[in-house]
Amino acid sequence: MTLCQHYLVPVVTQGGLTGLCAGAHPDAGELALSLERLTGVEEVDADGVMVVRAGTLLQVVQEVAAQHGWHCGIDIGSRGSCTIGGNVATNAGGNCVVRYGMTRDNVLGLEAVLADGRVLTSLNRMRKNNCGYDLKQLFIGSEGTLGVVTRVALQLHPEPLSQECAFIALRDYESAIALLRRGQKSLGGIVSSFEVMWPDYYSFVVDVAGAAAPLQARHAIYALLEVRGFDAVADRGRLENVLAEAFETGEVEDAVIAQSLDDVRRLWDVRDDVARWLDPYIPSRTTFDVSVPIRAMQLAVDQVRARILHRWENGTVLCFGHIGDGNVHIAVSLPDHRAHIDELNHIVFSQITELGGVISAEHGIGRKRRAYLRYSRSEAELEVMKLIKQNLDPNSILNPNKII
Amino acid sequence: MTLCQHYLVPVVTQGGLTGLCAGAHPDAGELALSLERLTGVEEVDADGVMVVRAGTLLQVVQEVAAQHGWHCGIDIGSRGSCTIGGNVATNAGGNCVVRYGMTRDNVLGLEAVLADGRVLTSLNRMRKNNCGYDLKQLFIGSEGTLGVVTRVALQLHPEPLSQECAFIALRDYESAIALLRRGQKSLGGIVSSFEVMWPDYYSFVVDVAGAAAPLQARHAIYALLEVRGFDAVADRGRLENVLAEAFETGEVEDAVIAQSLDDVRRLWDVRDDVARWLDPYIPSRTTFDVSVPIRAMQLAVDQVRARILHRWENGTVLCFGHIGDGNVHIAVSLPDHRAHIDELNHIVFSQITELGGVISAEHGIGRKRRAYLRYSRSEAELEVMKLIKQNLDPNSILNPNKII
Repeated sequence: MTLCQHYLVPVVTQGGLTGLCAGAHPDAGELALSLERLTGVEEVDADGVMVVRAGTLLQVVQEVAAQHGWHCGIDIGSRGSCTIGGNVATNAGGNCVVRYGMTRDNVLGLEAVLADGRVLTSLNRMRKNNCGYDLKQLFIGSEGTLGVVTRVALQLHPEPLSQECAFIALRDYESAIALLRRGQKSLGGIVSSFEVMWPDYYSFVVDVAGAAAPLQARHAIYALLEVRGFDAVADRGRLENVLAEAFETGEVEDAVIAQSLDDVRRLWDVRDDVARWLDPYIPSRTTFDVSVPIRAMQLAVDQVRARILHRWENGTVLCFGHIGDGNVHIAVSLPDHRAHIDELNHIVFSQITELGGVISAEHGIGRKRRAYLRYSRSEAELEVMKLIKQNLDPNSILNPNKII
Repeated sequence: MTLCQHYLVPVVTQGGLTGLCAGAHPDAGELALSLERLTGVEEVDADGVMVVRAGTLLQVVQEVAAQHGWHCGIDIGSRGSCTIGGNVATNAGGNCVVRYGMTRDNVLGLEAVLADGRVLTSLNRMRKNNCGYDLKQLFIGSEGTLGVVTRVALQLHPEPLSQECAFIALRDYESAIALLRRGQKSLGGIVSSFEVMWPDYYSFVVDVAGAAAPLQARHAIYALLEVRGFDAVADRGRLENVLAEAFETGEVEDAVIAQSLDDVRRLWDVRDDVARWLDPYIPSRTTFDVSVPIRAMQLAVDQVRARILHRWENGTVLCFGHIGDGNVHIAVSLPDHRAHIDELNHIVFSQITELGGVISAEHGIGRKRRAYLRYSRSEAELEVMKLIKQNLDPNSILNPNKII
């Protein structure tokens, strides 16, 4: 970094290259700085704090945590190829945000190399530390534009003893929210995932892509509810009670509960590995990753779909997401897709913004959404972002032309 | 602020003036900017997001949240006089961090006025928002040195339906930690407080200050365990089971469970209102607010006490704290207290640092701990803090000489 600063060579830091917003794509003349050899867990202490090098695969972090009797709160579909440094740099979300928060919420401290080569070691291990500015926050989610994250101190969680998973068909979106609230109350904090699939997505994955259908009949909306608790015997019963109550109210129309870990994998299959199902059929697509107020999400999905199909009647629109966090993914494929991406972005982002949402929930901005950042950020916010960027990277050599 | 910038008048923002590090004390020639009239909850939406003005009392925030069927995750002893803006500016901790995190973890967005009078409105309401830098983090916990927080968007939580509280005598510190871990596992996330009191503190409050003793006999350590769950019937039994198990292993020696909300208040009495018990007897005192790795906390308490009493044999040392978060408070009173404060600080901070801890867990730095910040921050960290301060407040008119 010192040399790059001296010769003003732009640096694009790369982790596992699983990002979805082209945040790690170098332009001509830019240096790609891979952290793939900066690997290894350095320590897991008795309080559940892990210190790990940035290039370590997320899956390795999860495995080493488990070997020490702890649980890593970060989990995303690309766990086998993404790196913890990349998760931190992009503030990755994923499947367990409803329980453990975003990556940001799992990071206690970090080490970053600044634009001029200075090493900022801020590997805090305390859960509470009010000793001045919380510097790590600057680097989490800033996609390599303010520094190169090299090490991370993570707070691990007690390892759950149970894993129960149900695939559920619901009467409507309101019922899905009611079930989530019911679960969060009755199960007292052990709901670890609540994924919702709209029928367009479910039918595509099952009928077109050939995934094994967890439920044969068709319904208005589907949810995947997972609990990871600490009572291997009672948690199954508690989950069944919640579903039975929701069945009696008519919210739940049908459900299947996993009987084995194999079942758990099968139920997750339709949701976890989206690319596997969609790539062969709609390789050219835009997957939106938007946040919307939970109460407005059905409206958002309906209006976005209607506006897209009104404009391109042969378009494909598939909706699914992490509803407990107000995050929906909308996969869109159009005839002659590439020619329409900008128009499509404006249609979706203006609709989402109108409903109080934002254009990126967990994927970030990178290069892909940069031109649209104004949908979600005011002039004053953009000014302060630029101020910080200029301050920490005055020659703009850190991942230029990303985010802002 | 625009005028103050123009005339270079330093501005010290004031909330409820309950801070413990003199962070809101103006020096001669500085303008005190009180937010006491900037009050009122502006909105509580259906997703549990509250938008509130900075000068609103924390207790009002809690009450309005409850009126809407939600629960505010922030709670500290001074709830009746501290303001939500002050909580945010200092990243206040408190009694429920083990469940809901620090104030930072409860804030979705905020509005701040910058040093030059620009209004930065960043009132995000989405739980997931990866649209560029997370600007709010700069203002949370920076004690008015980077901007004046004027409005806050808070994420509220589902309102718990049960409140069960036990006052527990334990065999030793290890047993207290074992009970905490047992509770966090068996109760699946509804442990809302775990406060520990060492015998020096307990005896002082009961024998000297005359508080009603929850337990008559004397023990090695005491804990106050509160659960706030969602099953008003079963939660009592679950808490009793946890205590019974810990009683069988010998960890728990005695315990009393609150039978009414009055009882809950009585059990909290010895812990919640520390100033009420200590002020009449040791008005001159220093209350340390340090973080230490949980596993090293008994050692920290023993060594700090030994070093202080070795130096001042007539000193008083009282230890209590939020152990689930690795945060211990150590109240120290010395003969001729004021004359020895600097030496006392160095003794405590060097010992805590040696054990891997930091000098402020939740109270902040303010003016009081400023000279000691180097115990917990490296040269590189201080440099970056100064860089940010100079960037956002080039004329240093925002709370000068606080933190850095």
